[in-house]
Amino acid sequence: MHLAFFIFTPGDTPMTQFHETITHIGQQAKDAAKILRTAATASKNKALLRAASLLRDRMDDILTANHEDMMKADERQLAPALKDRLLLNPARVEAMATGLEQIAALPDPVGAVDQLRYRPSGIQVGHMRVPLGVIGIIYESRPNVTADAAALCLKSGNAAVLRGGSEAICSNRAIADILRQALTEHQLPVASIQLIQQTERELVGAMLRSEQYIDVIIPRGGKSLIERISAESRIPVIKHLDGICHVYIDASADPEKAVAIAVNAKTHRYGVCNAMETLLIHADEAARLLPVIAAELLAKGVELRGCPRACQYVEAMQAASEEDWGTEYLAPVLSIRVVDDMEQAITHIERWSSGHTESIVTENHARGQRFLREVDSSSVMWNASTRFADGFEYGLGAEIGISTDRLHVRGPVGLEGLTTQKWIVLGNGEIRH
Amino acid sequence: MHLAFFIFTPGDTPMTQFHETITHIGQQAKDAAKILRTAATASKNKALLRAASLLRDRMDDILTANHEDMMKADERQLAPALKDRLLLNPARVEAMATGLEQIAALPDPVGAVDQLRYRPSGIQVGHMRVPLGVIGIIYESRPNVTADAAALCLKSGNAAVLRGGSEAICSNRAIADILRQALTEHQLPVASIQLIQQTERELVGAMLRSEQYIDVIIPRGGKSLIERISAESRIPVIKHLDGICHVYIDASADPEKAVAIAVNAKTHRYGVCNAMETLLIHADEAARLLPVIAAELLAKGVELRGCPRACQYVEAMQAASEEDWGTEYLAPVLSIRVVDDMEQAITHIERWSSGHTESIVTENHARGQRFLREVDSSSVMWNASTRFADGFEYGLGAEIGISTDRLHVRGPVGLEGLTTQKWIVLGNGEIRH
Repeated sequence: MHLAFFIFTPGDTPMTQFHETITHIGQQAKDAAKILRTAATASKNKALLRAASLLRDRMDDILTANHEDMMKADERQLAPALKDRLLLNPARVEAMATGLEQIAALPDPVGAVDQLRYRPSGIQVGHMRVPLGVIGIIYESRPNVTADAAALCLKSGNAAVLRGGSEAICSNRAIADILRQALTEHQLPVASIQLIQQTERELVGAMLRSEQYIDVIIPRGGKSLIERISAESRIPVIKHLDGICHVYIDASADPEKAVAIAVNAKTHRYGVCNAMETLLIHADEAARLLPVIAAELLAKGVELRGCPRACQYVEAMQAASEEDWGTEYLAPVLSIRVVDDMEQAITHIERWSSGHTESIVTENHARGQRFLREVDSSSVMWNASTRFADGFEYGLGAEIGISTDRLHVRGPVGLEGLTTQKWIVLGNGEIRH
Repeated sequence: MHLAFFIFTPGDTPMTQFHETITHIGQQAKDAAKILRTAATASKNKALLRAASLLRDRMDDILTANHEDMMKADERQLAPALKDRLLLNPARVEAMATGLEQIAALPDPVGAVDQLRYRPSGIQVGHMRVPLGVIGIIYESRPNVTADAAALCLKSGNAAVLRGGSEAICSNRAIADILRQALTEHQLPVASIQLIQQTERELVGAMLRSEQYIDVIIPRGGKSLIERISAESRIPVIKHLDGICHVYIDASADPEKAVAIAVNAKTHRYGVCNAMETLLIHADEAARLLPVIAAELLAKGVELRGCPRACQYVEAMQAASEEDWGTEYLAPVLSIRVVDDMEQAITHIERWSSGHTESIVTENHARGQRFLREVDSSSVMWNASTRFADGFEYGLGAEIGISTDRLHVRGPVGLEGLTTQKWIVLGNGEIRH
């Protein structure tokens, strides 16, 4: 029987309870957001820097809290990968503190005015960047998300409602307490950062229906979590699904660039969304380049699965199944397909890509331009490794995630993605005729 | 019993029928969108200009079709306002044709690259503007929306799935046929513009659940239609709700500007979303300005409803009820409130505004700046009439509507609002270290 039933009181249903909890948190967040919207850049930065120093000062408290979570994880026999994500150590706490300092150092996006220009009527029209309002973050085991996400929301002038995994509740609470102390010390509303303490799943449902309080939901975690949240949410969701990324080596590729990019895109890191999962190669280059690329990948322990033509060039290659083209391996496995021309490469990408990142390797201007234009992914590259699809590499300074949505923000989401724009009009008494 | 049941066949449920219809239309739209995404600017413009000239050539066909709709409207005893919106005449058809020519003359937003800059890794990173994909437009009686919306979608490289009101089906069909002929003549996919012929309501439901085919829904019509669509849609919606717009006359207002702006914002047109519905005035200016403004408004037949303080200055003013502050009159009615200071004005706006457009009248720099910064509406103005909140006045050339949402696009939505951006990366063989 679910915990929720134990808090059942006469006249209440459990669902009402969750609704009331969220209404209370939501109203506080909304009130905080009103103040945060126009909070001074200096106050936000000071609070972030203070939180960084408190994280270091209270290292022991955080590690003790994390130890409690780890003990429960042992009891519940969580998978080793999950426990590794949950674990905090001094280096990981230090990384959190450094992250907050980096966010403090970024330019404040709020209030930036652009494209202000005169219209024939005499008015000046432009945009001003403003916060989204209240952002709900739903995430799984990593406790560092508590600090990162809250800091990005604060810097961009948004109130954050955080809902971490139940397995990390003690760690998350310790971190959130520190952040909230820093807010209080710098006269910012403490409700700017709220951590939902209730660990019942039904609370997430109530959160996803609280569209009068929360302006956007950002889920961070595995694909099944994100799909469930998107399906259920009444609030707009900024989400990241698969990263099935392709590199296409064109007939006019520079061989050195082609080999370097293919090897880097696959082997720089395996478990990341911007790693290459499928290599497409022009038939004219397959004989020359596939054996070289395959040798380097095999030496690094990558398993290769190819189409019948690709298998002709590399002995140690297994036959790829139809399923391979649609799989995000997140592992040292690569599928390889030989194509007749760029059209075939683009058709393959249209059919199988998750719309995250694709790269062409070519020295041919017309084909490079066409690939950039025609491929409809959140990042499209020319002669560069797919591993560059990242907020830091793009110059955003920090990222809250990578969006595979089309609306509002695509690709790496930094501070700007957490804001919106309003129109401003400066006049001198103009009226409409 | 609903018509849907008559098309029931063994093994089918009516819902399956609607689902199949939408799946077919959706797949065709998706295929068209792939081609449209990279269609040449010249082809799109030529098709728009050809459609404009066909609208003029086939004026008689359109008016005959419209006559059929009008006859049915008489039979069904539709309200006069509804019949006026439904009616086409030569001037209205000419206006549609001119609208298409104006859209053809606008710059093509697709493919525009901006903010391309070098990163320390050596790659160049920037944005390229791309279409959203397939746009579903759900609208009520006005047949001109068929031409306007389809043309904006086409110019911005999106396929359009149009679902007009059943009362305008003959007119809409005649217009859509002309648009589709123009597409065919210029080798653009005919499915770039599809009009849903089935008039059953359940079809809208099926449309709102077809997230694998339609990327965004834009409803155009009354508030109840838009609320129903937003509540039901599984697809992101760009929507316009109320326009409860405020003008705040500050203590340091220039009297001439204050009077001109207040009168223009209320009386230039009554039934529009950017008309002022509430006037807020600083207590220090009320004695001097309220009688002048009231006299002008009363002379134009505007009914005035004021707070107790406002009523002291104008004899012909009724007492405003609490409900007045939250009402979008769309009529010659104005509510007026005297406030002690700008804080009170902003608090009133936060409580009652629909977030569409607010304007301050002041010569004071600090207060003007603060109003621009703090008021969280899609348009915030300083010394200008709220009536300027409009795509044409802002320089967008044309608008598909005014968004009161926060994400993706706020305020007037033109061609740019119908597009999104992808990241592009230009490298020279860079890999990540």
